[in-house]
Amino acid sequence: MSLTARVLLVALLVPASPLAQTVEHPLDALATAEYWTVYDALQSAGHLTPETKFTSVLLRPPAKSTVLAWKAGASFPREADVVLLRESRTYTARIDIAGKRVAEFSELKGGQSAFLASEMFGADAYIKKDTRIVEALRKRGITDLRTVSCSALPVAYRAVPEQATQRIGFGSCSRTHGTYHSWGRSIEGLTFQVDIAAKKIMTISDTETVPVPTSEQNYEEIPDRPRPHTTPISTFQPLGQGIRIDKGDIHWQNWQFRMRIDPRVGVVLNLVRVVDGGRARSVLYEASVSELFVPYMDPGNGWNNRAFIDAGEFFAGVGFLKPLRPGLDCPATAAWFDGQTVNEDGAPRLTSRLACLFERATENPAWRHLQGNEVYGRPSRELVLRSAATIGNYDYLLDWRFEPDGTITVAVGATGVIETKSTVLKAAHDDHAGPQTGQLVAEHVMGINHDHYFSYRLDFDVDGATNSFMLNRMVPQRLEKDPMRKSIWVNQPFVAQREHDAILDIRLDQPSMWMFMNPSVKGPLNYPVGYEIMPGATAKSIIAPDDPAQRIGAFSEHQFWVTPHNENERYASGTYPTSSDANDGLAAWTRANRSIANTDIVGWYTLGFHHITRAEDWPVMPTMWHQFQIRPFHFFQKNPVLDLPKSLTAQ
Amino acid sequence: MSLTARVLLVALLVPASPLAQTVEHPLDALATAEYWTVYDALQSAGHLTPETKFTSVLLRPPAKSTVLAWKAGASFPREADVVLLRESRTYTARIDIAGKRVAEFSELKGGQSAFLASEMFGADAYIKKDTRIVEALRKRGITDLRTVSCSALPVAYRAVPEQATQRIGFGSCSRTHGTYHSWGRSIEGLTFQVDIAAKKIMTISDTETVPVPTSEQNYEEIPDRPRPHTTPISTFQPLGQGIRIDKGDIHWQNWQFRMRIDPRVGVVLNLVRVVDGGRARSVLYEASVSELFVPYMDPGNGWNNRAFIDAGEFFAGVGFLKPLRPGLDCPATAAWFDGQTVNEDGAPRLTSRLACLFERATENPAWRHLQGNEVYGRPSRELVLRSAATIGNYDYLLDWRFEPDGTITVAVGATGVIETKSTVLKAAHDDHAGPQTGQLVAEHVMGINHDHYFSYRLDFDVDGATNSFMLNRMVPQRLEKDPMRKSIWVNQPFVAQREHDAILDIRLDQPSMWMFMNPSVKGPLNYPVGYEIMPGATAKSIIAPDDPAQRIGAFSEHQFWVTPHNENERYASGTYPTSSDANDGLAAWTRANRSIANTDIVGWYTLGFHHITRAEDWPVMPTMWHQFQIRPFHFFQKNPVLDLPKSLTAQ
Repeated sequence: MSLTARVLLVALLVPASPLAQTVEHPLDALATAEYWTVYDALQSAGHLTPETKFTSVLLRPPAKSTVLAWKAGASFPREADVVLLRESRTYTARIDIAGKRVAEFSELKGGQSAFLASEMFGADAYIKKDTRIVEALRKRGITDLRTVSCSALPVAYRAVPEQATQRIGFGSCSRTHGTYHSWGRSIEGLTFQVDIAAKKIMTISDTETVPVPTSEQNYEEIPDRPRPHTTPISTFQPLGQGIRIDKGDIHWQNWQFRMRIDPRVGVVLNLVRVVDGGRARSVLYEASVSELFVPYMDPGNGWNNRAFIDAGEFFAGVGFLKPLRPGLDCPATAAWFDGQTVNEDGAPRLTSRLACLFERATENPAWRHLQGNEVYGRPSRELVLRSAATIGNYDYLLDWRFEPDGTITVAVGATGVIETKSTVLKAAHDDHAGPQTGQLVAEHVMGINHDHYFSYRLDFDVDGATNSFMLNRMVPQRLEKDPMRKSIWVNQPFVAQREHDAILDIRLDQPSMWMFMNPSVKGPLNYPVGYEIMPGATAKSIIAPDDPAQRIGAFSEHQFWVTPHNENERYASGTYPTSSDANDGLAAWTRANRSIANTDIVGWYTLGFHHITRAEDWPVMPTMWHQFQIRPFHFFQKNPVLDLPKSLTAQ
Repeated sequence: MSLTARVLLVALLVPASPLAQTVEHPLDALATAEYWTVYDALQSAGHLTPETKFTSVLLRPPAKSTVLAWKAGASFPREADVVLLRESRTYTARIDIAGKRVAEFSELKGGQSAFLASEMFGADAYIKKDTRIVEALRKRGITDLRTVSCSALPVAYRAVPEQATQRIGFGSCSRTHGTYHSWGRSIEGLTFQVDIAAKKIMTISDTETVPVPTSEQNYEEIPDRPRPHTTPISTFQPLGQGIRIDKGDIHWQNWQFRMRIDPRVGVVLNLVRVVDGGRARSVLYEASVSELFVPYMDPGNGWNNRAFIDAGEFFAGVGFLKPLRPGLDCPATAAWFDGQTVNEDGAPRLTSRLACLFERATENPAWRHLQGNEVYGRPSRELVLRSAATIGNYDYLLDWRFEPDGTITVAVGATGVIETKSTVLKAAHDDHAGPQTGQLVAEHVMGINHDHYFSYRLDFDVDGATNSFMLNRMVPQRLEKDPMRKSIWVNQPFVAQREHDAILDIRLDQPSMWMFMNPSVKGPLNYPVGYEIMPGATAKSIIAPDDPAQRIGAFSEHQFWVTPHNENERYASGTYPTSSDANDGLAAWTRANRSIANTDIVGWYTLGFHHITRAEDWPVMPTMWHQFQIRPFHFFQKNPVLDLPKSLTAQ
């Protein structure tokens, strides 16, 4: 075949958006027709008054036992969880889609619906009509209100008592004049609390006047020609990618899995299996992001409300994931996945390219060994399943990277625009003891210290649902009689019995290996089959547990947690974090210290990093990656990548 | 241009081994003629008696001040450090190459030459002639000595008093019958100490008889067809790589650096600079691996001597680095670097492909941001400088990855064959409390617990040689008056004054940012320019400091160290670790607690991991990567990758 013919073939083989709209499996995403069934059921039941807004319609997956017992071709239940917002009151509903009926409907207490875009950004109009705001802006020399943009944001924690019964927004404004976006142009000192339902400002705080910075913050227009010597580089797969998708089952090398895109948490992996000796063996029943927590570290006016629960507070309408750009976020030849969410009127909205799937030539050997003068080995490649969440200023690339040896690398790339505060400071103090809450990133622009925490929910089913969690502790041992050594360490396995045994943080002075294993399935060497958690560089929260923001983001206090499987425990900061009293979520559930041995269990990994900003992070931040891995441990009988081809370029 | 023509062009543009043999710079590697000058000077001075063996000839770099003052075209000094071994005595020499003379010559006290291959593997012949060994093997049913392979290894620490004056090898044997290599076939229970010079066994220990395993350990022959659905994948650069090499200066995007291959520590980077606004700004004067420490955790006979100082003990003759395989370790289109070492007779030996350099399309964005409905951003790529060290069983891939944004990722990929112990055990005990010193990886084959520690020497010169090391500590702060928050953290900069201030380990509960900075060079925002150390997942040694192995590998007690620059402090376990008394090296130097503020300083990063082996690591181990990064911090004035091209495939 000529190269040209192969190139043509590539175009034919690249799968078009392969997640079919037809629902073929109990864990498939809701389809358009199902969204309308949900709508019709609510309308028929009289729940859709003109004032009612849709916050979310989410697939409510069938019970795990139902899914595991299901056989292809058999019918299966379909349900949706709906959140509605009406005159500041939040209602939750469960819809039986097959039955086309509202199975449950009630008003929510102790929390609220996530904020809608219309609440946050719709506030702009009435805020700028408030004479006190007009006057405060005039005092700052700003009279052209077209160039001012105001918003009202939620706070997940109960900061003021009014949140118990009202929708309270915490507002501030930015200047947009002279730029195509308003990041870096905050109007400081002027904040207000808004009664969202009444569309009016409740209280105004005007504490200081700070000129709005005018420093360069244009990250997109190229002022000059691109960097020289950047010759073209591309990945070339003349026979297409080695990905096969069959009725929603994604196959790549020895991996098999399903995925759906959920409006709240994004990519949800299901039924992740690895084929070993012709048998599809279970690794994970389900895996996804569970929640994000991004607290800022400035107690000032307009900043003490910034501690964001980035998935649960902000997914309404727009969805957690945002589109990827071919050739930038993923190779243009990737397979792309669409996703749906609902708008505030309950109509489904389909967005293209919310996830992509591509093979990457890592240029690394899967294994190698020099023996004598000969190098033996096999080159590797990996399968990348990528999505991206943009929540206002920040962009997060979210990767699930499947390796040929049974490892999955979970990676987060943080990029986008940092949150900045306008300041009278033009330069840092000489003693660099300067402001302790941030760093100047440009003249009069201060990047505020903050943290990022991602909670990953990992429902391991290693060769079956009944698993245990094991620590293999490395413990120093004194040698009294050895003629040549005085000390070694030994490994001491410990099977966690209850949740408190498995609340873990990396400590260099007390190392241990963390592993999910199946006590009932032994390999040929009599070890239980297992999958190890390989932590990466991370951070945990150091702010006080009684801080109201920290109470909502309490999952960030530890790097790893294990819970018994519970269908209702999906979100690490609780199902309804907005304005809540913080009595839902991982930290709350685990207080019961439930049994986790030899049962169906779920792991929760916190990937975190502290962020002190730097000039290089402005006006847009170079991507910074963090990751962790899961990998087989006594799961296979031997190295599972001995059978890779000897060359990447030949089959 | 047609695709075919482009493919031809690729072949033309791939640089052939670009490090010229001509010496154009004071930091260039020794050339063939220089090795012979060293030889001739020693011969003329009468130091090369027939019994004398060469351990090593290493470039002794000129003083840093000399190099920094040097201008292209001017002459420069050339010197070599030589180690010779004669009748169990070690001699060191300094050779003035320009003067063709021996400038210094003396006998070494308190340590010994590294072991030569002829000492370690040459022992086979006389060991197998010892009647006690023959009898011990016969007792084990082994009479065909052709299929037995014995060796005598050094131990870096002073384990027996005879090491003070003699060359003592610690010996054991393996069975090679039925396989093409002998890993996994140890003959346990039979060990001996060898007087290398006398070529005889001093003492024999025969403690137990363990059958030699016969389980499958063939990792190279493919028993079946390769894994299906692995379609061809390759990186395609029709106009060649964006690498330019000019008189040994390597240029890639904004990076400039030099490199040489040193027989002892491998790739040495020098004069790493980044071009910013037309000016080449210094980041590192020099960077390389400094030492490796790999202690095993089994006190048994034949295992208590296994604690390897993998660079300093084993580089003689063969060199630390070993050849890379095109298409496996690096793309076939990479640029390749040769290197030289000397054989035991002092003759230079040139080995091809000891390092490679290639561009990698990461398929990740250098930055991106979704604003409105538009995704802005720039795709990234990186430059990988790779080498590989094989020390007996283990292979280490050693990467320096240059990122377009000024970051350098330092990565180690561990692969190769784990060290195993033959055991009567066929399967693990039911309570998985089984042996606490290892894991069975195949029937009768036990992988022994061990650690890997890599010390990296990083001579930072951030915008000049005079630097300080700063911690930016994140410290919780209680808020008493804030209406909405009770706690934040603030950053508290602390400039390390003395070495003990900068002996550091990652602690999640006491986070801090680590940074080299130049107190005399401020950026426009008045911050000192800096480069941050971004630690990765790592381990530190937990064995007791008084353990003799740990005393030699004491750099592994901490993750980071800073010392004042000293030309003689290059090797973290000392210059002559073999059989030494452990009073050289990082832990010893820093006891003086020298001043490190506002002076020329060097950082030492320990990259470590504990290794409990698993069935998947046998018979060859899937590559496991660990890494850390250095990245600019207030070094550039803004994001330095705004000028990347918008597409990888167009210029």
